[in-house]
Amino acid sequence: MSYQPTPDDRFTFGLWTVGWRGNDPFGDATRPALDPVESVHRLAELGAHGVTFHDNDLIPFDATEAERDAIIKRFKAALEATGMKVPMATTNLFTHPVFKDGGFTANDRDVRRYALRKTIRNIDLAVELGAQTYVAWGGREGAESGGAKDVRDALDRMKEAFDLLGDYVTEQGYDLRFAIEPKPNEPRGDILLPTVGHALAFIERLERPELFGVNPEVGHEQMAGLNFPHGIAQALWAGKLYHIDLNGQHGTRYDQDLRFGAGDTRAAFWLVDLLERSDYTGPRHFDFKPPRTEDISGVWASAAGCMRNYLILKDRAAAFRADPEVAEALRASRLDELARPTLEPGETAAALLADKSAFEEFDATAAAERGMAFEALDQLAMDHLLGVRG
Amino acid sequence: MSYQPTPDDRFTFGLWTVGWRGNDPFGDATRPALDPVESVHRLAELGAHGVTFHDNDLIPFDATEAERDAIIKRFKAALEATGMKVPMATTNLFTHPVFKDGGFTANDRDVRRYALRKTIRNIDLAVELGAQTYVAWGGREGAESGGAKDVRDALDRMKEAFDLLGDYVTEQGYDLRFAIEPKPNEPRGDILLPTVGHALAFIERLERPELFGVNPEVGHEQMAGLNFPHGIAQALWAGKLYHIDLNGQHGTRYDQDLRFGAGDTRAAFWLVDLLERSDYTGPRHFDFKPPRTEDISGVWASAAGCMRNYLILKDRAAAFRADPEVAEALRASRLDELARPTLEPGETAAALLADKSAFEEFDATAAAERGMAFEALDQLAMDHLLGVRG
Amino acid sequence: MSYQPTPDDRFTFGLWTVGWRGNDPFGDATRPALDPVESVHRLAELGAHGVTFHDNDLIPFDATEAERDAIIKRFKAALEATGMKVPMATTNLFTHPVFKDGGFTANDRDVRRYALRKTIRNIDLAVELGAQTYVAWGGREGAESGGAKDVRDALDRMKEAFDLLGDYVTEQGYDLRFAIEPKPNEPRGDILLPTVGHALAFIERLERPELFGVNPEVGHEQMAGLNFPHGIAQALWAGKLYHIDLNGQHGTRYDQDLRFGAGDTRAAFWLVDLLERSDYTGPRHFDFKPPRTEDISGVWASAAGCMRNYLILKDRAAAFRADPEVAEALRASRLDELARPTLEPGETAAALLADKSAFEEFDATAAAERGMAFEALDQLAMDHLLGVRG
Amino acid sequence: MSYQPTPDDRFTFGLWTVGWRGNDPFGDATRPALDPVESVHRLAELGAHGVTFHDNDLIPFDATEAERDAIIKRFKAALEATGMKVPMATTNLFTHPVFKDGGFTANDRDVRRYALRKTIRNIDLAVELGAQTYVAWGGREGAESGGAKDVRDALDRMKEAFDLLGDYVTEQGYDLRFAIEPKPNEPRGDILLPTVGHALAFIERLERPELFGVNPEVGHEQMAGLNFPHGIAQALWAGKLYHIDLNGQHGTRYDQDLRFGAGDTRAAFWLVDLLERSDYTGPRHFDFKPPRTEDISGVWASAAGCMRNYLILKDRAAAFRADPEVAEALRASRLDELARPTLEPGETAAALLADKSAFEEFDATAAAERGMAFEALDQLAMDHLLGVRG
Repeated sequence: MSYQPTPDDRFTFGLWTVGWRGNDPFGDATRPALDPVESVHRLAELGAHGVTFHDNDLIPFDATEAERDAIIKRFKAALEATGMKVPMATTNLFTHPVFKDGGFTANDRDVRRYALRKTIRNIDLAVELGAQTYVAWGGREGAESGGAKDVRDALDRMKEAFDLLGDYVTEQGYDLRFAIEPKPNEPRGDILLPTVGHALAFIERLERPELFGVNPEVGHEQMAGLNFPHGIAQALWAGKLYHIDLNGQHGTRYDQDLRFGAGDTRAAFWLVDLLERSDYTGPRHFDFKPPRTEDISGVWASAAGCMRNYLILKDRAAAFRADPEVAEALRASRLDELARPTLEPGETAAALLADKSAFEEFDATAAAERGMAFEALDQLAMDHLLGVRG
Repeated sequence: MSYQPTPDDRFTFGLWTVGWRGNDPFGDATRPALDPVESVHRLAELGAHGVTFHDNDLIPFDATEAERDAIIKRFKAALEATGMKVPMATTNLFTHPVFKDGGFTANDRDVRRYALRKTIRNIDLAVELGAQTYVAWGGREGAESGGAKDVRDALDRMKEAFDLLGDYVTEQGYDLRFAIEPKPNEPRGDILLPTVGHALAFIERLERPELFGVNPEVGHEQMAGLNFPHGIAQALWAGKLYHIDLNGQHGTRYDQDLRFGAGDTRAAFWLVDLLERSDYTGPRHFDFKPPRTEDISGVWASAAGCMRNYLILKDRAAAFRADPEVAEALRASRLDELARPTLEPGETAAALLADKSAFEEFDATAAAERGMAFEALDQLAMDHLLGVRG
Repeated sequence: MSYQPTPDDRFTFGLWTVGWRGNDPFGDATRPALDPVESVHRLAELGAHGVTFHDNDLIPFDATEAERDAIIKRFKAALEATGMKVPMATTNLFTHPVFKDGGFTANDRDVRRYALRKTIRNIDLAVELGAQTYVAWGGREGAESGGAKDVRDALDRMKEAFDLLGDYVTEQGYDLRFAIEPKPNEPRGDILLPTVGHALAFIERLERPELFGVNPEVGHEQMAGLNFPHGIAQALWAGKLYHIDLNGQHGTRYDQDLRFGAGDTRAAFWLVDLLERSDYTGPRHFDFKPPRTEDISGVWASAAGCMRNYLILKDRAAAFRADPEVAEALRASRLDELARPTLEPGETAAALLADKSAFEEFDATAAAERGMAFEALDQLAMDHLLGVRG
Repeated sequence: MSYQPTPDDRFTFGLWTVGWRGNDPFGDATRPALDPVESVHRLAELGAHGVTFHDNDLIPFDATEAERDAIIKRFKAALEATGMKVPMATTNLFTHPVFKDGGFTANDRDVRRYALRKTIRNIDLAVELGAQTYVAWGGREGAESGGAKDVRDALDRMKEAFDLLGDYVTEQGYDLRFAIEPKPNEPRGDILLPTVGHALAFIERLERPELFGVNPEVGHEQMAGLNFPHGIAQALWAGKLYHIDLNGQHGTRYDQDLRFGAGDTRAAFWLVDLLERSDYTGPRHFDFKPPRTEDISGVWASAAGCMRNYLILKDRAAAFRADPEVAEALRASRLDELARPTLEPGETAAALLADKSAFEEFDATAAAERGMAFEALDQLAMDHLLGVRG
């Protein structure tokens, strides 16, 4: 297999990923700034489907209107020349010092109003560029100390902001949905809506919940030690997987943003297996950082690696699911029984209580002796992942 | 201050806490079995309000009907003699080997049906004993490997189970609500509904969501590195804090179940501060394990310590909130501004867009220069916690 | 490739691994006891080289002398019949309640003396069975609270114990070395000598350091979020890798003891790559727990999987190192330069100070622009791991 | 108590702490640059004993000789004017892009030579300013991927560097010792010498181990989930605590550098208890970052909080140790027995084997029944920490 990506694979990259210059808490940038137009061209050559951006990835925070217009015009030309799409955009509410205590939940009310306006402005541009998903990562919405934030007030403010944005896109007639991106911590000590679960729950209290879903990121959930495919499964189950950020991470530590496939490779396998069997048809979006040890050729090698690893894992997951021995192992582990409802059609509590086989005559000891055969199944998965079958 | 608890403090203990015999993955029990009736009497003497139980804390898994009746009668007598309440009960769906792959989401369908019946049976007893909350901790609902569980199917089964239980208590006319208890892992490699957020989100997909809330446990959220008071704040915000499990934990490691106050003492302070200012009026329930180094006198010392620490922290949090210097510091950190809506009453997106002060004329540089004064506020909190003020 | 193990692969298993019955903090045993003699036979059939044991894996804690002798005789017969070896043995100083506060560092002095005697007794048996390595895992040497253990006193007691054991084997003329096994926590809140580093440092303060090395376990280091191959590299560098425990783990959580290859598969790849290129010639010892969902056939599947995964990874690591493109990539990343001393032969500080090219004339800007090409190298490693080359 | 620090308390601060401008991986600086001379004056006013620095905290990377001399002269004047000391200095081998792959262990040999020269240059300045400790934090010595660094080669290079530095200070007749500062990760994926233990072990392989000790940092060990006081106790036990970095952290996540006392307050209590009872007489050095939410007044509030919290905890620890009830509780927990050698004076293995009371007549069951009384002891410690006694 060549594992050569094409636009049909729907791979997208944030401009901020390949464009990251390598500054970290302990070090200065190691790479020069990268022209977004060059990124569009290079990613197109590598086989990507599109790019995504924060407003300030493209347009400097303090650009004039004229500068802004010129930048957008030139960017559109690059998109047209390459056929690259912009399926998603988002707002930078974290880099500028004005957002040091948050955007939508900053204690300062004027900062919150400014954050809303900054977001609306980029929503307009996002729609103009064809985006159908607008991501919201509230990286500064949080606190380092317990008294600094009344979390219930902050959630009120967060709801107020998203309700307004929901109203706005509805009134404008935009075909745009929002995807909230959770993260447990960093850069704030603790961030609000720290996991996929918290974001899913929050959405249910919004006025237009149908406009809001989640944008889970591999590394963010793994920073909380959570099983990423499990979180994605719950998001899918809730009908709320609107976008996804693919990268790699080594457990509970700083946000590493490794290329996809690095970090927990087995979780990546199960993730691809799940995504490819699901009804998720959106972009496979990479949100990673090429390590600052790399020069620009390393940047492109890293970006190419993200796509290559996805395709390898997709191939392996498909082979796993197609293998008759796997089908047999899944039956031995009773996955088919899990798919079957616990109750008979229409069975009520009263009916269940009347079924003596369910309790009075149930032989718990005998049932307990049945092995689940999960180890044999998992070794088959390992064999497929490592390519030692067929 | 004496910090002597009384029943009005509403402190409750699981029978399984003081009754834990000290068996762990690497060691045998170090303490003899404790008679639940003795626990009721001793906890009453210590100032507790009540006890809670899993069915098998009170009644052995294989007890006959007659044995069961005798046990219940004797237990009720102890409650009556002491005035102790049973505000909550729950089902053990994890100790017996039959539940090795789960209860409500076991791959084996007959195990799922048995788990439902076992639960219903103890719900009847719970109501008979006056409980108004029924906790559901699905400690075995999960997996160690990726192929072993189709999580979407498993969530369907989980929903099916809770919907049936919701129907049951409604049909019986029981005044009983359910509190789902999340946990990220242990004893399963990954457990479904791993955090407060995931449980809150799941509840919204049930047929009778009003009957379901959460029972967060300090240590469980901290095993995922999450800020416990933040999670409680979101549960309160959602109107879903139905019960709470208090204990201590040292971060991302095995489930320690230390006495309340041990582990992250500052988080405990902020938790008590939040609970006491909230509308939560339920029990302050301790779910801890007296370390296996302790003999029975250490068990009671540990239980007493849980209550004592809560009362000390309650006292300190109250002093913090009553301190005029704290009030001033909160204003300096603009907590009052966070409490104020971002939008004017009735303000629409159009109106916000028309407000030039919000964007066009907003001076981001000047706004960025304002300090948040969080460190001074946090030091005041530290001073109150450590008792060095007033 | 068949990946079928043979005794030449030197794979060994603890009797306690396949013999684990599945009891955990929340559940009873799910499997019947396994006769050690059966384990010897089955593991031999699977291709293992030998078994290892704690005294009480083989001989019950309260066995009489006659029972002990009979058990040993029968066990030796099984070894002889199968050709299986016993390269390592160890002492159980954690299961019995008497060790609830530790063995060599228990606060109770008579417990410490008993622990020493219990250890010496099993050393004699270990040597009789041909073992050349004696492992010491101090799983109960630790504390849950800060006042419970004066760590400096405890390290004095630990040193006293190991010094005595060093004297003993020397006086007896035994060809036996000790391997200390670190672990950060569980079952104690914090365990002394929590990582490979702490154990290596401790050894240097013993009277006979040459008799002491380490027995690192994959999961134990990963429970502290540490890079296992890095720890092994430091142990090898110090000449102290005397034994190794192979298994799998998902980061900072409870001790999972997954089969080797599960958990962090990429770390397993780099570990095998390192071990196979090193001078370590000891056993590849598996210290894992077949999940309690499994019946006995699952136990053997899991054991077989450990060995299979090692052989697959060994094959892949060898192909990685033999690939000319990898050799080129290693040069591009200047691994050869890292292997070259920083100083010229005999170069002193004065000479270095006199070398203007090293500082005064060094062009830091130019040097900073060189890319390290690590991403391309790492993708080659990924390709080899996943079997997509050649 | 006033908890007002004086120079006798030996509190020191890195220039980089109060001077941190608030740039983080996701945000720009929020504070203007702080003149080191102003820091010296303000810290002196707050009651500090001295300051410490990286070469580039004081002197820009690309300063000319003349600029350098002028800066040093002015800095010395400030020290003289205030009486502030410089007990420690260190080298910045991490900010400039040239160190992106490390200093002493960079794959590029010329970078390694440059790093040595840069270090030697600042050692001269450190000695000139009166420093007796030179800290070495190898924050860039590590890797993000397994093939990028041969760790054994890298440890050879690390040893080569420290051996040369040891030679240099010896030849120069400097009264200066080195303190190696471990950290598990960030900014590299995994850093060499990740914990106190690994650093202690490494030192034993140096040519002049007597010149090398450790500089543990609270948050760095806690990023690996380790018990900080335990690590300090082992460093003290080994005679190797040469310096210490005090701050706060919330477990296994990004490096937070909270002010001392924040984070795990109970660990801070046990740390101060240990330090104050030990023979460590060096500075109490704060290595923290005032959160970027703060303006300059928040910076000084945060710095003052570090010292205040130390003094409060020192007061509380002293009261704990002076309390007769605590003395009794320590005896009940048999700390006195732990302090007593396990063996009689001169007792050999043979003598121990001859003592039937130690094994043959030892009643393990009875010994197991003794409670350790740790919970009562720990509650006394909690009471003292929270100031509810006396």
